Amino acid sequence: IMLNPRLLRVRSALMRQCMAEFLGTLVLILFGLSAAAQVTTSRQTKGQTLSIHLSWAVGVIVGFDFSSGAHLNPAVSLCFCILGKLRWGQLLPYCLSQLLGAYVAAALVFALYYDAIMDFSGGVLTVYGPNETASIFATYPSEYLTLGGSFLDQVVGTGTLLLCILSLTEKRNTPAPPDLIAPIVAGIVLGIIMSMSANCGAALNPARDLGPRLLMLTAGWGTEVFTCYNYWFWVPIVAPITGALAGTSLYLFFIEWQLPDEPLENKNNCKLKVYYATGVNFPARLPPEGESKSALS
Amino acid sequence: IMLNPRLLRVRSALMRQCMAEFLGTLVLILFGLSAAAQVTTSRQTKGQTLSIHLSWAVGVIVGFDFSSGAHLNPAVSLCFCILGKLRWGQLLPYCLSQLLGAYVAAALVFALYYDAIMDFSGGVLTVYGPNETASIFATYPSEYLTLGGSFLDQVVGTGTLLLCILSLTEKRNTPAPPDLIAPIVAGIVLGIIMSMSANCGAALNPARDLGPRLLMLTAGWGTEVFTCYNYWFWVPIVAPITGALAGTSLYLFFIEWQLPDEPLENKNNCKLKVYYATGVNFPARLPPEGESKSALS
Amino acid sequence: IMLNPRLLRVRSALMRQCMAEFLGTLVLILFGLSAAAQVTTSRQTKGQTLSIHLSWAVGVIVGFDFSSGAHLNPAVSLCFCILGKLRWGQLLPYCLSQLLGAYVAAALVFALYYDAIMDFSGGVLTVYGPNETASIFATYPSEYLTLGGSFLDQVVGTGTLLLCILSLTEKRNTPAPPDLIAPIVAGIVLGIIMSMSANCGAALNPARDLGPRLLMLTAGWGTEVFTCYNYWFWVPIVAPITGALAGTSLYLFFIEWQLPDEPLENKNNCKLKVYYATGVNFPARLPPEGESKSALS
Amino acid sequence: IMLNPRLLRVRSALMRQCMAEFLGTLVLILFGLSAAAQVTTSRQTKGQTLSIHLSWAVGVIVGFDFSSGAHLNPAVSLCFCILGKLRWGQLLPYCLSQLLGAYVAAALVFALYYDAIMDFSGGVLTVYGPNETASIFATYPSEYLTLGGSFLDQVVGTGTLLLCILSLTEKRNTPAPPDLIAPIVAGIVLGIIMSMSANCGAALNPARDLGPRLLMLTAGWGTEVFTCYNYWFWVPIVAPITGALAGTSLYLFFIEWQLPDEPLENKNNCKLKVYYATGVNFPARLPPEGESKSALS
Repeated sequence: IMLNPRLLRVRSALMRQCMAEFLGTLVLILFGLSAAAQVTTSRQTKGQTLSIHLSWAVGVIVGFDFSSGAHLNPAVSLCFCILGKLRWGQLLPYCLSQLLGAYVAAALVFALYYDAIMDFSGGVLTVYGPNETASIFATYPSEYLTLGGSFLDQVVGTGTLLLCILSLTEKRNTPAPPDLIAPIVAGIVLGIIMSMSANCGAALNPARDLGPRLLMLTAGWGTEVFTCYNYWFWVPIVAPITGALAGTSLYLFFIEWQLPDEPLENKNNCKLKVYYATGVNFPARLPPEGESKSALS
Repeated sequence: IMLNPRLLRVRSALMRQCMAEFLGTLVLILFGLSAAAQVTTSRQTKGQTLSIHLSWAVGVIVGFDFSSGAHLNPAVSLCFCILGKLRWGQLLPYCLSQLLGAYVAAALVFALYYDAIMDFSGGVLTVYGPNETASIFATYPSEYLTLGGSFLDQVVGTGTLLLCILSLTEKRNTPAPPDLIAPIVAGIVLGIIMSMSANCGAALNPARDLGPRLLMLTAGWGTEVFTCYNYWFWVPIVAPITGALAGTSLYLFFIEWQLPDEPLENKNNCKLKVYYATGVNFPARLPPEGESKSALS
Repeated sequence: IMLNPRLLRVRSALMRQCMAEFLGTLVLILFGLSAAAQVTTSRQTKGQTLSIHLSWAVGVIVGFDFSSGAHLNPAVSLCFCILGKLRWGQLLPYCLSQLLGAYVAAALVFALYYDAIMDFSGGVLTVYGPNETASIFATYPSEYLTLGGSFLDQVVGTGTLLLCILSLTEKRNTPAPPDLIAPIVAGIVLGIIMSMSANCGAALNPARDLGPRLLMLTAGWGTEVFTCYNYWFWVPIVAPITGALAGTSLYLFFIEWQLPDEPLENKNNCKLKVYYATGVNFPARLPPEGESKSALS
Repeated sequence: IMLNPRLLRVRSALMRQCMAEFLGTLVLILFGLSAAAQVTTSRQTKGQTLSIHLSWAVGVIVGFDFSSGAHLNPAVSLCFCILGKLRWGQLLPYCLSQLLGAYVAAALVFALYYDAIMDFSGGVLTVYGPNETASIFATYPSEYLTLGGSFLDQVVGTGTLLLCILSLTEKRNTPAPPDLIAPIVAGIVLGIIMSMSANCGAALNPARDLGPRLLMLTAGWGTEVFTCYNYWFWVPIVAPITGALAGTSLYLFFIEWQLPDEPLENKNNCKLKVYYATGVNFPARLPPEGESKSALS
């Protein structure tokens, strides 16, 4: 049989970008969750908290492997829409691809650590108790935490993430060296997880939390993964988005609006004004359809 | 409502530089203190001493994010004034911005970990005892330490920091690759914290210690944060400055004065001689007002 | 005596490439195994699990030291043959060199830690029990693990490795910066070991497991190193190869086939089609004999 | 008083190079020893074995800060003489500068941790026992270790170091990116310390061990630091030199002699042949006096 790879080529640029988001998010979540599974099911004998934190950082570097402009996070994609760096029509496909990647990653981790999870939990998949395994996949609040505290926690964490990432790549500023963007973003994520994950696990990313939670729902943990802690699951969806918007606002106030105007050819760069005034997408400075820098485009 | 971001633009170059120092110091201290809060309040279950040390290093990298020439430290700003790389008139605004950034960072960490700190401490904010939480924010001497020992500790630590940083960027030398300045400085800070924080916590930076201490004063720890250990709080203010001056002197003797003269156009580079002779600021080689490389300028 | 180094020069380019593979694999395995020996024989007092993981990463960076295109892994060499980046005739010499390097590395570690191993094990070299020392050298399955589980584990681990590595260096994509290839590959290996070594040790590499196992057979552990766990030794040979092929397929589907065609001069690039159709080696795009980029060529 | 820094300028290029070796070795040893002091005197509460290992790596990066061609190690300087990259007449001054740097670093660490060492040891400076503090400064063999085993250990460790470093910088090979030389060498040292320090502490460097040992002799530990373990102190002096020569030989055989000849202008590059035949220094390819790349030259 002759196999012509060209027949498998995806013609839509958006579809190829979504494939990159899917694959990048899959690998990011795969590293993070399987490290958590390794440390948990080995009862800390084959790794430690720091290994999990470092694995997320590696996941970020590798996630950029498939697309130099990867978002890997619906909250990031939303902010890039607001900043005019992504079309609004691309937002939903991006988010769904990220969510699907997170779901598939969780399924892969469940398969990979099925024997270990069954051995560790005594065969009962639970959300509470000393042998619970739900925290391998999704985030949960610490016992002492109030609802407001957990919301604030995710707002500050994701806000810090966005403020730092956006400042990193602003071209009119003294930008970070392009070769080091991926490692530095990984360092930022590592720093946030090392310093802001005690309260409720530093999801920072709606897809990272919701995707694995949906996997647990379908894989035997039951509806408790959504009802537990008084339906807490909405916090790591809504709070990171709120935090991302807050971080983007800080970036605009502290950095973007303080920078000199761009050269004349970009002078009609009124996207932000228009956006805030009308909510309508304004395509100035967006690359023509199909010219984005996704690895798969 | 139409929002024109240009109206929010800060016109003073100095003010924009101070905003960069404020933001950079805020993020630096935010990473360091919240990592300490995470490790302390989780009783080492969600991190370890090494996580705190690594978080400070990440904070340094991110602090440079907002200004490629960020100081983030009053002792560094002072030395840069002495070396003619910062105007004396800029020193106080820089230091106040750094102090304010440290204060706001501490306030943010207090809000972020309020539930955790209350749970950990049983609701009583103290400086001494097994459930003390003051050491999350500020530095304190070990029990065995004499006053002279703690002073020497901070002098050597900050002296090492300045000697290494200044040598790193000397342009007539074989300088470190510009792209790697931020990671290497982060590595230096990591090394100093890993090796010289046992005695009294490696403040290395008056703003890093005084800002959070002021926050504790206003947030419920009381005046004990200043009176404890026989009014020890002045050491991490005065000793880092002394050490920075010592490190700068070593740099001058071992590096700067050993280097070949600069090309002729910079020949009238007598700032150091003049400075030592008169204490008057000599503006040779300073960029014209408003041309500095701050991210926010 | 006059020594003319030119007389020692190996004339065959393939032989020199094999020397590079031998030396690179030797150093890679030397770092990994001796770190395991250090942590095991010191009963975790002179290192921890994370030290072992980090040592493998250092080994990868150093392994690239001797050849910028080093494979260091028979599964990688096989995939490079399939992708037309290595001649089929070079495959066996490459694999044997890698196996020999792994064997010699294990012998060196045995010599280096002979006193320590004898002290730790009470002089009896065993595969089972609290003082077993076989797991310093080769990988073994966890008790809870089914055969299918351990096979899947190695398939996913090695598949992730190949998918990430191949995507990293694709030139038509936005490739990783060449200077950072070695550190990023080391990061990927670190991530996989931190997150996927709980089940059966993350061999990921037939030579890494078989070489040291052969050393143990000849050094006193006896045939049990092959018969133990129901002749499990074939899994870390066959499963990594299967996983490497799976990862390569994912790479082809998700990346290579989605990329734009290469410029016209490479248009007759039908190697993949031909390969899948006939299994016959097709040398398009292979460098002329002796022009490969091995450090030793 | 007018201070003219030019009067302090050292006129001899060799003297300036020695100042760079002194300062670089001082900082390298300062980081390593003070991290050991921090971890030991805090009884592992303010750091762990991995912190010490990482501090040595930071020390290497910082040591290169003062001279891009820093050796920081008498065994390295010797090999560079053999390879014709350093004049034989420079060897002794280099080694003495390195030894002096190590001595001063140890003195600084003793001052820095004086209170802590006195508290930890109960005021008695000893080489043996649970409260011994000698191992903060110098290396000692594990109890199980034979003399041959400890000699081999240092030979293999230092041999690996030299083989890797020399291969890294060979210009006719595919060399490591110049910007990353310092971090990669730091990684190599980190890897060797993480994997080969269990037996006898991985001195790898005669100055690193002898300098601090001399400090202990003069600071109150007494002559036992030299007589202990049956006058073992000579091993970390002689074995690293032996290992460095072995590593250099492997480098010559596996890399240098396999590389293509250099272009014609360097054709009279017979230094190695001459060296091995006569032991006489042959200055081909050495830079003219004063043109070396030392930061201080």
